[in-house]
Amino acid sequence: MPDRDAPKSVIRRLPVYVRILDNMIRNDIEIISSRELSEVTGFTAEQIRKDLAYFGAFGTRGTGYNTSVLREKILEIIGLNEQTNIIVVGSGHLGIALARHNIRKNPYVNVVAIFDIDPEIIGGEILGVEIMPLSRLPEVAAEYRVKVAILTVPATHAQNAVEPIIKNGINVIFNLTTAKLEVPEHIHVHNVDLSIELQSLIYYATQEKEEA
Amino acid sequence: MPDRDAPKSVIRRLPVYVRILDNMIRNDIEIISSRELSEVTGFTAEQIRKDLAYFGAFGTRGTGYNTSVLREKILEIIGLNEQTNIIVVGSGHLGIALARHNIRKNPYVNVVAIFDIDPEIIGGEILGVEIMPLSRLPEVAAEYRVKVAILTVPATHAQNAVEPIIKNGINVIFNLTTAKLEVPEHIHVHNVDLSIELQSLIYYATQEKEEA
Repeated sequence: MPDRDAPKSVIRRLPVYVRILDNMIRNDIEIISSRELSEVTGFTAEQIRKDLAYFGAFGTRGTGYNTSVLREKILEIIGLNEQTNIIVVGSGHLGIALARHNIRKNPYVNVVAIFDIDPEIIGGEILGVEIMPLSRLPEVAAEYRVKVAILTVPATHAQNAVEPIIKNGINVIFNLTTAKLEVPEHIHVHNVDLSIELQSLIYYATQEKEEA
Repeated sequence: MPDRDAPKSVIRRLPVYVRILDNMIRNDIEIISSRELSEVTGFTAEQIRKDLAYFGAFGTRGTGYNTSVLREKILEIIGLNEQTNIIVVGSGHLGIALARHNIRKNPYVNVVAIFDIDPEIIGGEILGVEIMPLSRLPEVAAEYRVKVAILTVPATHAQNAVEPIIKNGINVIFNLTTAKLEVPEHIHVHNVDLSIELQSLIYYATQEKEEA
């Protein structure tokens, strides 16, 4: 049973473990130690033992973790053991990039629809997934029990797009717009602001300049 | 003079302050307290005072920070007081999205070129910025003293694209591919893996399901 109070930092590391374990399993590696996991993830071995113990996954002292067992356990913890239905709201370049990537490369999610307000592109499709008007969101959310929305509309439209999302039972929003969304407390919003991330990187470029 | 050892977490918050101060200044707000900054950022007032004191920016007790002075100071700390020349390597949908956004909306950077290996799109342009073959990277990097590369090529091409980047004096890579890059120690790589972020979010969607 997932622990409701797991820190966000732990949750964010879990899919990293999954990706590494996938690789290991593909290479027929059956057992991995926390030290080896540390080398590939860059997290400390102690951190890894703590993360996994958090959910009751314990390695065998002197041996390590069984890769398949650990992978299954982590998938179950995150909820990746069955596909999650998601939607993409906003089909600009960023929305298309995320839709395509998730349709083709992410086995854990099922992109059921892409929404936009541009009549020119509504009715089209991305890798077989239909681009629909926002008016169809309620119907799609109900039919597929959609739980996650990726939000990639222009910042000025973000709050407007949030309303139909949260009114239709979608409780998790992956917000890639630069807008700060106002949502009720039970809605989980994860903001990734690529502009802010880029701007903070300039700091390191500047440091280099001064060193030269 | 910037502090070379500022923690990454502090550096990542700095552009958030800039964005908020920009807004304040547009609205003719001259003074802001750490408490008010806390309300708009979601960071604690204590955290904010610590962040800013780190670089010698102190508010006046009982009054607060002068918004213009604080903004200038933070821009200088990050190195945003003059435009930084950057390139985008990979002009798929994600690369185009980032190129367009930064060309149009980010006053702190100057996108000098976009690189790709696809002969079909080389020679084209995105909002006036040319799409070039990777062979022209050395020339562009030297001419514009490029310091930051946004990397959005397919994961399987990522490491190959890294070589010309770091050989030509670019020391900061914003890596949006899912590949783990191997680089010398003096190269600053910032990884944003949107798949991993999305996967970890499924945890919160699953929690919701169990509550229901």
